[in-house]
Amino acid sequence: MPIEPVLIDLYELTMAQAYWRARHDGPATFSLFARGYPASRSYYVAGGIDASLSFIEHFGFSDSDISSIHGLDRFDEEFLHFLRGLKFTGTVRSVSEGTVVFADEPLLEIDAPIIEGQLLETALLNIVTTHTNLASKAARMVHAAGDKSIIDFSARRTHGADAAFAAARQSWLAGFAGTSHVGAAAALGIPAVGTMAHSFIQSYEDELEAFRAYATEFPNSTVLLVDTWDVESGVRNAITVARELSTQGHRLGGIRIDSGDLGELSKMARRMLDEAGLEHVTITVSGGLDEFRIRDLLANDAPIDSFGVGSAFGVADDAPHIDTAYKLVEYDGRPVRKESPGKQTLPGRKQVWRMSRQDGTFEADAITYADEAAVSDAAPLLRVSMARGIRVDGSDNSLRSARDRCRDQIARLPRALLQLEPVERYDVRILGALATDSSR
Amino acid sequence: MPIEPVLIDLYELTMAQAYWRARHDGPATFSLFARGYPASRSYYVAGGIDASLSFIEHFGFSDSDISSIHGLDRFDEEFLHFLRGLKFTGTVRSVSEGTVVFADEPLLEIDAPIIEGQLLETALLNIVTTHTNLASKAARMVHAAGDKSIIDFSARRTHGADAAFAAARQSWLAGFAGTSHVGAAAALGIPAVGTMAHSFIQSYEDELEAFRAYATEFPNSTVLLVDTWDVESGVRNAITVARELSTQGHRLGGIRIDSGDLGELSKMARRMLDEAGLEHVTITVSGGLDEFRIRDLLANDAPIDSFGVGSAFGVADDAPHIDTAYKLVEYDGRPVRKESPGKQTLPGRKQVWRMSRQDGTFEADAITYADEAAVSDAAPLLRVSMARGIRVDGSDNSLRSARDRCRDQIARLPRALLQLEPVERYDVRILGALATDSSR
Repeated sequence: MPIEPVLIDLYELTMAQAYWRARHDGPATFSLFARGYPASRSYYVAGGIDASLSFIEHFGFSDSDISSIHGLDRFDEEFLHFLRGLKFTGTVRSVSEGTVVFADEPLLEIDAPIIEGQLLETALLNIVTTHTNLASKAARMVHAAGDKSIIDFSARRTHGADAAFAAARQSWLAGFAGTSHVGAAAALGIPAVGTMAHSFIQSYEDELEAFRAYATEFPNSTVLLVDTWDVESGVRNAITVARELSTQGHRLGGIRIDSGDLGELSKMARRMLDEAGLEHVTITVSGGLDEFRIRDLLANDAPIDSFGVGSAFGVADDAPHIDTAYKLVEYDGRPVRKESPGKQTLPGRKQVWRMSRQDGTFEADAITYADEAAVSDAAPLLRVSMARGIRVDGSDNSLRSARDRCRDQIARLPRALLQLEPVERYDVRILGALATDSSR
Repeated sequence: MPIEPVLIDLYELTMAQAYWRARHDGPATFSLFARGYPASRSYYVAGGIDASLSFIEHFGFSDSDISSIHGLDRFDEEFLHFLRGLKFTGTVRSVSEGTVVFADEPLLEIDAPIIEGQLLETALLNIVTTHTNLASKAARMVHAAGDKSIIDFSARRTHGADAAFAAARQSWLAGFAGTSHVGAAAALGIPAVGTMAHSFIQSYEDELEAFRAYATEFPNSTVLLVDTWDVESGVRNAITVARELSTQGHRLGGIRIDSGDLGELSKMARRMLDEAGLEHVTITVSGGLDEFRIRDLLANDAPIDSFGVGSAFGVADDAPHIDTAYKLVEYDGRPVRKESPGKQTLPGRKQVWRMSRQDGTFEADAITYADEAAVSDAAPLLRVSMARGIRVDGSDNSLRSARDRCRDQIARLPRALLQLEPVERYDVRILGALATDSSR
């Protein structure tokens, strides 16, 4: 494998050299947050926190990175020497992965000498945005599917291999039942799921022969793809195989339908399977599914057990980018903010507070300066997750905890926010001195 | 760095074990192509060919991959042993990278024992689709910008790090002037480009002081960001710095505007710069730019020299996925095809032929079986790029050649296809025995 090319924008390095030369390397705070929402989003599920902390902990420039940068013929040798020795020495405050968050709320704040904070920008934006976007999209699909399962089939559809890995992780975080991505499943310890492709069936001259070849090999975990030629005869062949398996003490797992009118076809298939006494055989559907299609199929009582989602999930097709920003909010003890039209930012180091009703439903959030008094009856969302460059236990970002957290928090969202077409915005208040300073 | 998790869908492996057990490993052909177009596309620029060939050449399962797969507790030990020794031994026929291609036309065909061809599916679809999508989006932007420059600022916006690398490569292929992605620029030998961030300016109390600090460090390559507080005073400060630089024998490179009404602001800035005798100082704009905004700005005579594009390009926002497929089209000498509703495929090993008018404009393409007689006065697009698992010189997929090829081919497209809102489809004909077989 070629060496991973360093993911950093040129200007981070040129600014760093200018800071370094001018000895302008005071303490700074950078804040990472989303500006507003895409049209079809009303909340975000924070993703990429664990990956970001891991990146920051191992942050540094290898000899090969330095040699690449040197090759651009633009940097001072002494600065490159400084860069080679640079590590992250600061503090990170972050929300825990899987937390539901809203526009303007920091997901991550970095307190560090400005050079260190600046150099993290490109990678942190890329990581947090990619993971948060996928987790947020997946949460919508999980909600639409109710008590039915969703499986991540997006490995071939994402923009590259790390997005495929992020999709597997974030979809599990948001409540999917498994992924087809073998490497991700193994690395994350989550279920690997799969059926068969049309190519398998077509490589045999006869569908029944193909079904038998597969079922013989995996007698207890076979899901037969029934739509290569005709779904009705496909289901008939599946029933034949199910009966043959059962005489050997095995059970056909399920069938999959990948094209056509999934609602009608699943009803027909369910009827045929049930009439054959195969109530345990599940029905998986796939092919162009997004949260809207899933909702509509279930609203029409399609007897579907499991939805395989690929393209629409893997690229977050209705909102492929979130307008995240990584902004300097404090330098050398002085809160700073940007005032470009439409891109104003809140100054200063912050805390986010979440207020809940008696029944546990989230009522509103508040953003304050980090050093202000606690908002009463509210829980702070940002915790110290790295101090002096070393990860600390302030927030548990393990995948298991993040999945539990996401499920718990989504259940506590006001119902209006869970509609697939947003009808209202969650109440996020700016309180205390921050309110005064930002309205000036 | 953790070990790269193997990017493969579970079913490729289960099918492979079933093929292996049944000694069902005859010669197969798989064809990779796009089904139709997203609403805003009328052509594709083939990308990811070089990366695919590289992947195929090094294809195999490492000990760590085998151990991951073994951990799923589903595979036969003997099969895993077979897998550990597997290499690609087949033939690849592919279009050259940067070729303009259309729906249904194979970008890549794999002739190999079915197990080898099957196991490549997930990764090849991911690679070719990601790169082709980015190249196709970039080509639209280049066309919209006419003789103005476009720079890739998407490193922070893509879905993951390898998409950022693909974006840098494919945007250069399509005619961009450079990328902000340092690692990609170094690895690909293309220009690294950058300006400065708002954070740099805000870390100083005074904009002029910030501009001076940067310009002192990079006196011949400074592009000043003028919209942190107010563009008019930003440009005034830039003029001051330009004059100071010029007394030292240096030249300010340019200014960048990242927010507000880019058309009006660029006109004001140009006027101010020209009045100060700074005609050589260029204007770069950025912030939410796509091909439509670029077209509209230039149609309104905005005096912009260079467009920095991030989100809209990096995620191909108007068409984040292309419906590509990797289909078995021949097995053991027998053409096969899928007949699922809406997903019919053309059977057999294929060739694509391009017919041009006298003036060089592309007139129509034809798809035939690969072994049929040449279509007269037409150039074949698919060439052997790998034989017996080793890359051969049939197609030149170097980035330099691909960039030249893309420019040449876009210039030869019928003008109607270049409109940003597609008005017609290119004529792709099915000829010869393939026509007879697919209309049956």
